[in-house]
Amino acid sequence: MNNRLIGAAVVGQSGGPTAAINSSLAGVIEACANNTDTVTKLYGMRNGIEGFLEERLIELYPLFTLADGTVDRKGALYPLMQTPASALGSCRKKLPKPSEDPAFFERLLSLFKKYDIRYFFYIGGNDSMDTVAKLTEYLKTTDYEMRVMGVPKTIDNDLMGTDHTPGFGSAAKFIATEMSEIVRDCAVYTVKAVTIVEIMGRDAGWLTAAAALPKLVNGEGPDYVYLPEVSFDMDAFFGDIEKAFEKHPNVVVAVSEGAQFADGRYVGEGAQSGAADVFGHKYLAGTGKALEMAVKEHFGCKVRSIELNLPQRCGAHLASRKDLSEASLCGQHAVLKAIEGTTGAMIAMERFEDKNFPDGYACRYLPKEIAAIANAVREVPREWIVPEGNNVTDECLRWILPLIQGEWPVVWKDGLPAHFVFD
Amino acid sequence: MNNRLIGAAVVGQSGGPTAAINSSLAGVIEACANNTDTVTKLYGMRNGIEGFLEERLIELYPLFTLADGTVDRKGALYPLMQTPASALGSCRKKLPKPSEDPAFFERLLSLFKKYDIRYFFYIGGNDSMDTVAKLTEYLKTTDYEMRVMGVPKTIDNDLMGTDHTPGFGSAAKFIATEMSEIVRDCAVYTVKAVTIVEIMGRDAGWLTAAAALPKLVNGEGPDYVYLPEVSFDMDAFFGDIEKAFEKHPNVVVAVSEGAQFADGRYVGEGAQSGAADVFGHKYLAGTGKALEMAVKEHFGCKVRSIELNLPQRCGAHLASRKDLSEASLCGQHAVLKAIEGTTGAMIAMERFEDKNFPDGYACRYLPKEIAAIANAVREVPREWIVPEGNNVTDECLRWILPLIQGEWPVVWKDGLPAHFVFD
Repeated sequence: MNNRLIGAAVVGQSGGPTAAINSSLAGVIEACANNTDTVTKLYGMRNGIEGFLEERLIELYPLFTLADGTVDRKGALYPLMQTPASALGSCRKKLPKPSEDPAFFERLLSLFKKYDIRYFFYIGGNDSMDTVAKLTEYLKTTDYEMRVMGVPKTIDNDLMGTDHTPGFGSAAKFIATEMSEIVRDCAVYTVKAVTIVEIMGRDAGWLTAAAALPKLVNGEGPDYVYLPEVSFDMDAFFGDIEKAFEKHPNVVVAVSEGAQFADGRYVGEGAQSGAADVFGHKYLAGTGKALEMAVKEHFGCKVRSIELNLPQRCGAHLASRKDLSEASLCGQHAVLKAIEGTTGAMIAMERFEDKNFPDGYACRYLPKEIAAIANAVREVPREWIVPEGNNVTDECLRWILPLIQGEWPVVWKDGLPAHFVFD
Repeated sequence: MNNRLIGAAVVGQSGGPTAAINSSLAGVIEACANNTDTVTKLYGMRNGIEGFLEERLIELYPLFTLADGTVDRKGALYPLMQTPASALGSCRKKLPKPSEDPAFFERLLSLFKKYDIRYFFYIGGNDSMDTVAKLTEYLKTTDYEMRVMGVPKTIDNDLMGTDHTPGFGSAAKFIATEMSEIVRDCAVYTVKAVTIVEIMGRDAGWLTAAAALPKLVNGEGPDYVYLPEVSFDMDAFFGDIEKAFEKHPNVVVAVSEGAQFADGRYVGEGAQSGAADVFGHKYLAGTGKALEMAVKEHFGCKVRSIELNLPQRCGAHLASRKDLSEASLCGQHAVLKAIEGTTGAMIAMERFEDKNFPDGYACRYLPKEIAAIANAVREVPREWIVPEGNNVTDECLRWILPLIQGEWPVVWKDGLPAHFVFD
């Protein structure tokens, strides 16, 4: 290899937790540990780029390899894979533009040099890919050679350039399972009642769509699902519920936390002060609660709202085996492509049908130029939402279904899932 | 047997769903099906005693036995056991006193005679045991021989006369697992934040106590748990959080939905004051939400509240194997004791330590006179709550821990747990 680059690597995790983000970390660790002649050391940065700036680094090879240099799968890698949320810690730091704050990037550069870091792996969502893009842009203005790779992660499945994102499958499996159980729970009484389940996903309705999976699998799902891709209409919503009451007394619907009226107001606005996070995203809560009040007023029947909340993204005890495997492969491919010379890219998954695989599909793992990916949101296509806007099509569900296949063989300790925790 | 009673049996489910109530039903079905010379037919009543009054009955033997008369475990009984919520449907009907409404009981009696029902099994919590008690009382005034048995069920674990209740172990396992995952999720950021998890159990704190189990198992649980058995003091609560902030930036607490101030007001009532939704309605936000607002106002830091809600009681995908087995045994013993001649009793579990059993304990299943059980609530003993009232003792946790042991070998269909549904 004429572009061989020998030195240390650093890996970080950023953005919101998922059940699969540690599997991507495990993939990075495994691929690096299998290439110690090139990647001489592997540092984990605590709390993403923020911790890196404070030099809070852990050497990972000693923790994840046995005396003979091979990866300690049973003792360390598998426990890491079944642990939810970013084991290295996370941050939500938005990097400045290199042109606006050169001193910031010079500080980063001095640290890269200090630790001889030649490989930089960052596991995260849209905002993390923005970090990868800016770092790549800055490095072009220097003569320091370092390869920067993004590893996708987001339960929201809204990253551009990849068929789907690691973390989505496990969150979808959790949501679909919970919906299936909630539908059973709500079916026991004969009294008219409406149950509204609020699902994560501010800008894209992929997770809310997953709430409808039980319908495809066993014919029993929520009556309707409302995605943020379609304007929410209160009268149409009431009409939907009325129609459902004609069929059965227990109406169950799923609604995205990001549901908006035609005028752009969030359905859940009002209970919140309008605070925004550091990236300018409006903080949302209360879509389910707002609809609960509206239904109670309109129908006068029993109403309950359920916010699935954090467990959606950290429900590792119910992780999709397919998802964790793919997450690990994304991490591994990021390392392998970087060693081969790629930089400024995110590993994307390309799905292709293949009947030889148990779930009828497999993925290619390809580096995609990061500039085309960062800061764009991929929505559920309109044609995968029924014309009435109150459900998704079977085609949409058939697209999601393979991603929730298989159960991770969780190792339990005294009745609880065993978690890997860095000291 | 000189007290042999031959005829049909009827079984019903009542009260709120649990993950184990269908295992008790499965136990009743299995024991009856093994004694068809005595229990000639087994009816399931839809929606408890309400459905029975409307003669909505299903014959269960044909659905659960194979051609040779043996129980169809794989095809029907196991799927039923892993299905959450009352498969037969439920009701919340409170029976009148026999002396107050004799006509009501005469109607019941005429139905018992019509279907030659000689065994009546009712699976449920406090209110259901009240039904069993009243039916028993009424039958004493007639010359109709029917044996009435209660099978305990409640996630709340607050029934008198039994060591613990079927349904509690699975709910406790779900809550402890979720807490463990939430603690991991909340640990990823370095920003000061408080996460408040609201747990079911209006009158007794058993489930909230279970939220502390991860502390015993892996040293990482919520910082505090607040049970309804101890008056909630807002200043002490703020003091607790301040102390926790000295140790780490991410404070996680669990609080019972039934937490009350010393003057008897529910903590969840406090939130009614200010909050209004997008439609201008005031609403009762709940205990977690009320504390979220209080903490936000007092500390000004990031605060989140999570209501675990229905999934706590219907999370059958995460059922405790121990719990489902015990639930089934309670059902079986109810049938066997009734066949032997017992009536007007609930099957209670009596725990004894036995190192020969994998979890260090086993249970005896004993009939307890129903009158002593109905309409009383068993609380967490004060000595199992630390003097400060903000946590439970290790002794308490060691008492709960055996009940969450083992995972039910869930059968999956296309990535979701397979459920048994009566048509």
